Amino acid sequence: MSKIAYAQMKVEAGHPDINTKRILYLIERARAGGAQIVIFPELAVSGKFLGDTFKQESFLRECEQYGEDIIAASRKLTVVFGNVKLKWELSEFQVFDSIFVARDGKRVDTFAKRNLSSDEYRYFSAPTEKKNSITVPADGEDFKVLPIFDVDDILTSHFDFGVNFTSEPFSIDKNIADEKFSTEKPIIQVGAVGIQNTGKTVYAFDGMSAVFNSRGKIVQLAEPFAETLNFVELDEIDKMPATYVPEESEPEKIYRALSHGVRDFLQHVGLSKVVIGASGGIDSAVSAALYVKVIGAENVLLVNMPSQFNSATTKNLSEQLAKNLGCKYCVVPIQESVDLTVKQLESAGFEVSSFVRENIQARDRSSRILAALAATIGGGFTCNANKAESTVGYATLYGDAAGFLSALADLWKFQVYALARYLNDEIYGREVIPQGIIDLVPSAELSTAQNVDEGKGDPLKYPYHDYLFRAFVEQNLRPEDILKLYDAGKLEKAIGCEVGLVKKYFPTEKDFIEDLERWWKQFTGMGVAKRIQAAPILAVTKHPYGSRLESQNGRHVTKAYRALRDNLIEK
Amino acid sequence: MSKIAYAQMKVEAGHPDINTKRILYLIERARAGGAQIVIFPELAVSGKFLGDTFKQESFLRECEQYGEDIIAASRKLTVVFGNVKLKWELSEFQVFDSIFVARDGKRVDTFAKRNLSSDEYRYFSAPTEKKNSITVPADGEDFKVLPIFDVDDILTSHFDFGVNFTSEPFSIDKNIADEKFSTEKPIIQVGAVGIQNTGKTVYAFDGMSAVFNSRGKIVQLAEPFAETLNFVELDEIDKMPATYVPEESEPEKIYRALSHGVRDFLQHVGLSKVVIGASGGIDSAVSAALYVKVIGAENVLLVNMPSQFNSATTKNLSEQLAKNLGCKYCVVPIQESVDLTVKQLESAGFEVSSFVRENIQARDRSSRILAALAATIGGGFTCNANKAESTVGYATLYGDAAGFLSALADLWKFQVYALARYLNDEIYGREVIPQGIIDLVPSAELSTAQNVDEGKGDPLKYPYHDYLFRAFVEQNLRPEDILKLYDAGKLEKAIGCEVGLVKKYFPTEKDFIEDLERWWKQFTGMGVAKRIQAAPILAVTKHPYGSRLESQNGRHVTKAYRALRDNLIEK
Repeated sequence: MSKIAYAQMKVEAGHPDINTKRILYLIERARAGGAQIVIFPELAVSGKFLGDTFKQESFLRECEQYGEDIIAASRKLTVVFGNVKLKWELSEFQVFDSIFVARDGKRVDTFAKRNLSSDEYRYFSAPTEKKNSITVPADGEDFKVLPIFDVDDILTSHFDFGVNFTSEPFSIDKNIADEKFSTEKPIIQVGAVGIQNTGKTVYAFDGMSAVFNSRGKIVQLAEPFAETLNFVELDEIDKMPATYVPEESEPEKIYRALSHGVRDFLQHVGLSKVVIGASGGIDSAVSAALYVKVIGAENVLLVNMPSQFNSATTKNLSEQLAKNLGCKYCVVPIQESVDLTVKQLESAGFEVSSFVRENIQARDRSSRILAALAATIGGGFTCNANKAESTVGYATLYGDAAGFLSALADLWKFQVYALARYLNDEIYGREVIPQGIIDLVPSAELSTAQNVDEGKGDPLKYPYHDYLFRAFVEQNLRPEDILKLYDAGKLEKAIGCEVGLVKKYFPTEKDFIEDLERWWKQFTGMGVAKRIQAAPILAVTKHPYGSRLESQNGRHVTKAYRALRDNLIEK
Repeated sequence: MSKIAYAQMKVEAGHPDINTKRILYLIERARAGGAQIVIFPELAVSGKFLGDTFKQESFLRECEQYGEDIIAASRKLTVVFGNVKLKWELSEFQVFDSIFVARDGKRVDTFAKRNLSSDEYRYFSAPTEKKNSITVPADGEDFKVLPIFDVDDILTSHFDFGVNFTSEPFSIDKNIADEKFSTEKPIIQVGAVGIQNTGKTVYAFDGMSAVFNSRGKIVQLAEPFAETLNFVELDEIDKMPATYVPEESEPEKIYRALSHGVRDFLQHVGLSKVVIGASGGIDSAVSAALYVKVIGAENVLLVNMPSQFNSATTKNLSEQLAKNLGCKYCVVPIQESVDLTVKQLESAGFEVSSFVRENIQARDRSSRILAALAATIGGGFTCNANKAESTVGYATLYGDAAGFLSALADLWKFQVYALARYLNDEIYGREVIPQGIIDLVPSAELSTAQNVDEGKGDPLKYPYHDYLFRAFVEQNLRPEDILKLYDAGKLEKAIGCEVGLVKKYFPTEKDFIEDLERWWKQFTGMGVAKRIQAAPILAVTKHPYGSRLESQNGRHVTKAYRALRDNLIEK
């Protein structure tokens, strides 16, 4: 009998001291639980998203030294763990993303990851030797184990069992039930939990640790996002019944990822309090309900910052929201400051247009009030932007695009609404986000043209633009592609929005084309410029801004687009 | 006789229409100049820094179509140019970074780049065929040409001549005189000029186009940063005398790169006017002198924004600067607004510390005044941060860390001073930057503790910290390495600062260690957080922020560091 423990551990990137302490503790627990083998995630000692820290020799050596501590702790227990491995070639070093096998205080085997992604290839070398398996001793037996990093890695079946060191972060389109291993041997899948970030993008790791039997069925599944040490009897795997993998709704998945992501990110950067600018709109309300659940109402300060354009409706709604959530609330009006700014500019001889006035308000709120309040209470202020706004830069730089983290910036507006309902119905079980906020027309309330009481609001028609923008970002479609689909009458189905909306919003070809060009210009122009300086983003998809690389190159449309456009407009 | 033209052309990334127009024009000029062959840079049609635009199929197809236009224009002239090449594999496409050879309207040969960097590997595939040369017909002869992308690419000498499609941007540590080709055949080197950006980092391309003879000597050299069409007779190359490669001072190189970079970036993003917050300090003064030279005094607005802490000294110096440069100047005081902010926070029940007050001032200047002024005149406002400040986040987010571009953020403070003197002495030939600004102690003037008239200023001791921070950033040294060097008495030489400074600034081991820990914490903590949201950076080194990848992972020091520290402090 070979009892295997696999540790879905929380990894703190860049902190080998903390990670090693955790590994040593989990080794003890595995031993106490009677395991003969304990398996840890890829790069469990160093973490994965370290950027150029992977170029710092003394950091890498430190990780290797901690690796020695782990090896030393392998008395009568086989420990399999991921760590960096250095190799010296003249005065240069190579770094390998490696798996170590240790037993009775000695290193038994190592394996270096071969199929490196372009990001990994920046720091890691691929091994020259073509090694496919590692030797994992247990109970006097030597198991031949296949270390894999991706379901497609399996090229042989000459092994006893496989270990999939999965390291993909959570995304809403990832589903463990879809993982199919083309093998006839059991696979133990082990991943880390916690958050790791690449600077602009913060990823929540759900772990995805599981045991697959020889027929590829899941027979054991660890709780997502939780640090767990799991045990399985190797010989029992094929006798175990298939596990029920719960089907979850999208808002449920999103809520879980966001709440864990926010909690772990706050902890990782050492923040425990947040300030949220509460406008009475949906994004800030969802943000508030999320943070209150994660860090407690006592650590959340809601601030309403009205100007002359803010309606009594939204002021009341934001106060109601704070009451419902039970968090601190204050009102800091900005009109006096905005008037002062306009007066100062005018007396210096400049004319201030109404468009400039709009952005003055947004910056006044974030850079003057929220940033100062956050500093005062020793916390951070949140950015509440959604992905539709981020796509086209419908946010003011140093205004509502600012903050220590954008928890909603990888969600389309329809997902924000769905999350609002989910928070009320499932998480709080009562109407914490007032129905009035959910029903309100989305509006920045920066001018009389955005009067919510008259049903006026943002220029974005979310039920269509959410999907158009998603096609830009996730499907890599450009105006040429969109216009061809439009012309063929296939656009709505291709991008996933409600059929009939396009005609409703854009009665003529000209209307449609003007709208398309407007937002494409914004997406490739000011949108990029703003995203470069916007707050970090909590990712929930495979296409979050930040991981999507972009240059400030401005608008370009193809010849085919121009020809089709001219043709359509002349019709 | 085979006359070869090589085009050091300006490439607009993401605009194949503009680039193709330029290529077609240069083909005509090459033909008029009697060339049999004309050579264009790598990815001359698409540009190189496009990010995920390389995933947009309709963009790639457009580039291919423009490539057909170029091929069609090759009547009686061989055209060699770089472009993307698509290959369909089932429903997926592969993209190759390719060189095309065309003659008489037909494609003669193609070559795909094989040694891809990790960034290129993200979008491009490496070819499976092992092809080393291309056929370049001219004058009824077929030349065997070696296409290379790096001096190390040359693995064979069975060719007639080589073409090095160099695509490294300018950096101060790059020198064409250092390029050594280990070949016995002539090499024609051709690169693009203009700027290209990766979002956060803007790179200026100097072209580096040149002809190397069979002994590896430069016999022809194009003017850096200028769009030039150059001609050389292949048979004459080995008879031509070696070209004098001028040795340039560092400030000269930096000035040229910055002035071209700023000019091309403004043009690329469509800006013609800038607003500069002029504090009376060195960074904003250098920035002002630079922009005035590039876009003219009439397009530069200097704004002085004093609070109660700004001295008459700096107010006068900034006015003097504007007079010297002949640009528009205005004074917009911030005290009233800062007082209003503090009053509002206090009446909402919060206590405002003097540290919070400091940052309120900085944000008031940038986000309230400069951003509004820039919007009013339809321009951008500059970020004037230097690299030492950026390294440790000695700047306020949404305050002096903001702007449309940081032209000086890849320069250490000593390089900013050298540039100031160079601007006065060589570019303007008179004291446009008042000597008083050069002599002044660097100070943010955000509190009485930073009174310049009392010689008080920033906590940064630039003559040492410039070099310490450079060691962090460029040498990948960590506190452990720094402390070992310090303990061995080798620190100053290792990092390049003046010998004797360390003892002068830090009389005791404890002083030294406290300082080291303070800035390491900032560099890996708030420094990272601020850089994520700071303005884009114009690069002049191989280690600009933005290209240097970093995660928000906070401070970590090694066990070896802690042991050495404890040992030194106890001494």
